[in-house]
Amino acid sequence: MSAQAVTLLTDYGPHSEHVGALHAVLVAVDPRIVRVDAAHDIPPGEIVFGAVVLARMAALLPGAVHLAVVDPGVGGPRRPVAVALAGGGALVGPDNGLLGLAARQLGAERVVVLPSSDRRARTFDGRDVFAPAAARLALGTPLEALGVPADVASLRVPDLPGCEVMPGAVRTGVLGWDRFGNVQLSADASHAAGAGLLAPRGVEVRAGGHVASARMAATFGDVREGELLAYPDSHGHLAIAVNGGNAARRLGIRAGDPVELRATPDPGG
Amino acid sequence: MSAQAVTLLTDYGPHSEHVGALHAVLVAVDPRIVRVDAAHDIPPGEIVFGAVVLARMAALLPGAVHLAVVDPGVGGPRRPVAVALAGGGALVGPDNGLLGLAARQLGAERVVVLPSSDRRARTFDGRDVFAPAAARLALGTPLEALGVPADVASLRVPDLPGCEVMPGAVRTGVLGWDRFGNVQLSADASHAAGAGLLAPRGVEVRAGGHVASARMAATFGDVREGELLAYPDSHGHLAIAVNGGNAARRLGIRAGDPVELRATPDPGG
Amino acid sequence: MSAQAVTLLTDYGPHSEHVGALHAVLVAVDPRIVRVDAAHDIPPGEIVFGAVVLARMAALLPGAVHLAVVDPGVGGPRRPVAVALAGGGALVGPDNGLLGLAARQLGAERVVVLPSSDRRARTFDGRDVFAPAAARLALGTPLEALGVPADVASLRVPDLPGCEVMPGAVRTGVLGWDRFGNVQLSADASHAAGAGLLAPRGVEVRAGGHVASARMAATFGDVREGELLAYPDSHGHLAIAVNGGNAARRLGIRAGDPVELRATPDPGG
Repeated sequence: MSAQAVTLLTDYGPHSEHVGALHAVLVAVDPRIVRVDAAHDIPPGEIVFGAVVLARMAALLPGAVHLAVVDPGVGGPRRPVAVALAGGGALVGPDNGLLGLAARQLGAERVVVLPSSDRRARTFDGRDVFAPAAARLALGTPLEALGVPADVASLRVPDLPGCEVMPGAVRTGVLGWDRFGNVQLSADASHAAGAGLLAPRGVEVRAGGHVASARMAATFGDVREGELLAYPDSHGHLAIAVNGGNAARRLGIRAGDPVELRATPDPGG
Repeated sequence: MSAQAVTLLTDYGPHSEHVGALHAVLVAVDPRIVRVDAAHDIPPGEIVFGAVVLARMAALLPGAVHLAVVDPGVGGPRRPVAVALAGGGALVGPDNGLLGLAARQLGAERVVVLPSSDRRARTFDGRDVFAPAAARLALGTPLEALGVPADVASLRVPDLPGCEVMPGAVRTGVLGWDRFGNVQLSADASHAAGAGLLAPRGVEVRAGGHVASARMAATFGDVREGELLAYPDSHGHLAIAVNGGNAARRLGIRAGDPVELRATPDPGG
Repeated sequence: MSAQAVTLLTDYGPHSEHVGALHAVLVAVDPRIVRVDAAHDIPPGEIVFGAVVLARMAALLPGAVHLAVVDPGVGGPRRPVAVALAGGGALVGPDNGLLGLAARQLGAERVVVLPSSDRRARTFDGRDVFAPAAARLALGTPLEALGVPADVASLRVPDLPGCEVMPGAVRTGVLGWDRFGNVQLSADASHAAGAGLLAPRGVEVRAGGHVASARMAATFGDVREGELLAYPDSHGHLAIAVNGGNAARRLGIRAGDPVELRATPDPGG
């Protein structure tokens, strides 16, 4: 029998020692475990963005064990948990909202609270609690053997920025951004459609204290180099980018910032 | 039968979610695929440097499938392609010059244009087009089953900075640099030899608006701490470094910058 | 027979081409080698911090081959070595102090000096010397087949910052820090105990030219958001952090900096 895949998502920083320690724990349990680094560049402590990325990664590998640690409250009262998913996979991490989106989208079936009695320190539950639990799940240990059952409804969900749809405008918020400075919003393509903001057309973007002109488009090359665009990104979210540039930097954007897209009179194009 | 190795080279950023998505797609197809991260810190959109790094990586693992995505024109008219190599491996990525050096050095035998009809978005062909194609090739699917045949001669090659060799001088350009600030040039050791710039001897370096004294050398410790050296780097290119320092930062260098090395009267040493 | 695991620790930078080259060399020798990235974000040339991290990683995977390259003197007189450990694993890297802590903690049994005759360049022994040796060890080649035996006592140890314990105070030094800005000190919990600095209580921190108030604590949430704490970290070292913030940045700290913790009159709490 081969081991299940384990994905790893953290805010530990790319190729940092902390990431290496999680891998070492998994390999020490069984070198056959297939390890997949989902992301380790989540900004420190950004639980909401981590939750969004985790839900996407879990959807790409639905049967896997998803180990996720964005855990500014480590060592405090938040619960370490493992969650069995309807599709056969599992989530493992702190119950601070990080697991909430993936649990809802993939169907949380059962939850256990993991004991933290074996931990060697108060500040590294990734190594001491979560990775060992993920390894055991990947090798077929039943969820119930790992901890004390808890109510599925007690799992925390993250506070996503809200969306408001008006004729010709969408009020939304920043979930996060990537290395290219492409800014992901909590609104999706259906919100844009509901507001009548269909590509191609001009929009005004209000964000981070800036007001800027952009175009609704489908990809970067649909606007001129250096121009701002709003588009449905590869995950279905609405996003803002600069063709060949960095929208997050240009707009001075921060996680959670409110963003408004509003139709402008469009002289064609 | 075991699966072939797949190398991954992108400008997505180290341990970013985009890199994780490529891995997840490969593992979802077959967890036995051996995945090798070639590099993910290529500066955003730097096709030329990506092409140089890809050619080197492909030479280290000649039989593998090399998945490469530096793709500022994603969703535009550039073709998604797969290339069968003489040694049995393959290249998969956008036909924007990124694959051109590796294709030339390892021998492109056949090319197909990949369909983009299955893609879920206009901005993430790495996930939707290239990784699935790479996975299929790694599992033994023949190239011809993946797309429409195209002319090998139609593959684009990147615009490398040129080299000019004169008595006592080489005019060349910057390909890129690494974390240490070691600057890689398009010239190689044979250009330096042709110009009579053999180690050890003094040279003047003109780059990024700076004029600086350096020594032709073989390794960092051949000059004093903090001194500039020019040397044949580990890939045979000419490179500029500071022993214990950062040459890219000291010279204010950018990709594509012209660089001139010129012999100076050498008082010995 | 399956291959042994190989861990990789370098200062090459996360997901840089140099890291990719080490992986490619290992996979080219045998794709079944289980590869574990220990850390690649060691600050360039920081041998002491690399040595500390290597010793921790080796303790997490005691039977593995640990390939470590923080090697500012590459191509110079320092010796390339491989070290057989008491527990069955091995260390491979430059003998510049990087391997010294792990060798001492895990028990160096035999040492060989690796030949550098096969290397293709003077500046990339990771690719040309160390990775091939690590691959051979992982596949079962005996240490003695790799090079010329040397005296175990000749292995260099790194210069760790010293610790001085006084009544109510500890003088120590900075080993390094992580992405969160948590600063690791050479002192450990026993030094703090020896000085009577037991949690919870107030301390004054002198570091990087700053004098700041902190509390001895067990985890971040034991102090208010934005407050400084000193705590035994997940590896048993004493560390300084800011709850929800970045202590390295606040104190302007650099590797090797002296740090003093001193008891303050504690008005309770």
